[in-house]
Amino acid sequence: MKINEMKVNEYLNLLKSDAPAPGGGSASALAGAQGIALFEMVCDLTIGKEKFAEYQEICAQAKADGEKLYKELTEAIDKDTEAFNLVSSAFKLPKATEEEKKVRSKAIAEGTLAATEVPFKSMELAYEGLLIVQKLVGKSNPNAVSDLGVAVLNLMSCIKGAWLNVKINLPGVKDEAAAKGFQEKGEKIILEAEALEKELYGRVLELL
Amino acid sequence: MKINEMKVNEYLNLLKSDAPAPGGGSASALAGAQGIALFEMVCDLTIGKEKFAEYQEICAQAKADGEKLYKELTEAIDKDTEAFNLVSSAFKLPKATEEEKKVRSKAIAEGTLAATEVPFKSMELAYEGLLIVQKLVGKSNPNAVSDLGVAVLNLMSCIKGAWLNVKINLPGVKDEAAAKGFQEKGEKIILEAEALEKELYGRVLELL
Repeated sequence: MKINEMKVNEYLNLLKSDAPAPGGGSASALAGAQGIALFEMVCDLTIGKEKFAEYQEICAQAKADGEKLYKELTEAIDKDTEAFNLVSSAFKLPKATEEEKKVRSKAIAEGTLAATEVPFKSMELAYEGLLIVQKLVGKSNPNAVSDLGVAVLNLMSCIKGAWLNVKINLPGVKDEAAAKGFQEKGEKIILEAEALEKELYGRVLELL
Repeated sequence: MKINEMKVNEYLNLLKSDAPAPGGGSASALAGAQGIALFEMVCDLTIGKEKFAEYQEICAQAKADGEKLYKELTEAIDKDTEAFNLVSSAFKLPKATEEEKKVRSKAIAEGTLAATEVPFKSMELAYEGLLIVQKLVGKSNPNAVSDLGVAVLNLMSCIKGAWLNVKINLPGVKDEAAAKGFQEKGEKIILEAEALEKELYGRVLELL
């Protein structure tokens, strides 16, 4: 059953259980989806209100851009668990003969690549989300500024949590160029996102 | 309908909608519940495994302590939205006569106090969670160390997000002693939690 189709309490109970998936990867994607959902809500609480006339264009654009990120991050909640299960299944394949070993190794490598790509994509999506929130702070309904702050925190939790999931899988990524790409791009996103979080959270606190 | 009873995608769509609740308060409580759930999962992936014999007691205690926090944080997901709705309803009460004004003011004050107490409690619960994770880092199944890191991030997102919700309601808390208490205790939790997050996230990265 897909996580998106479970009840919230069923999902949380499954996360809490000794089933290794869903784990931190899906939880990070869900945090990211919460972050996008919250800034979209803030846009909706601004759009169409005359007293926020000057923010209309920014909010309409942010909402439109958010929709794509929201769709992909909600899908990533399930994709991350599916990728994890792929790796688990691959490790359980038989390894008695040379042929079986070859098939098993290939399956593990493919699964591990997927289990790295999915959280890496989540990092990129949530970072795009942070850049959108940057445009909205101080230019949206001030009554909902705390929601914008919570959006920042959830997007950041997604970025850093997904990074941990990239890092734990990286030693298993056999394509060296790909592994180097994840490492370098990931470090860059983390640095930029941390600076942005500090700036945005500080501005939200000032606006409260 | 309670958020805990909604499907994950229904909840996220409602969060995204122009309904002001659920908002950042419920999202922060959900992040906190994810944090507790994740470290409990790590405990379960450690308990009963011979090679982690030395961690059994720490993990069993952490899991037992986590259960209380998990129960309260999952309940806070709904409580936060209920408190917000209480304030909204109070503002819509009639204010034509002196008597009506008095009733309305009292209802607003009570609602605002509840809307401050709920996220303040979430801060305290998630901070207790962080203190438990501190005991688990390096003393639980190392294959799940990234999940412990994601637990830290979600607990921190809960603490700081709930704090924004305390802060936005604080000007409406008329009991000055209570307001001062929230402010002082809240600032203390934030400072201690930020230091702890930095330490724990750093240690998780080293253990990856």
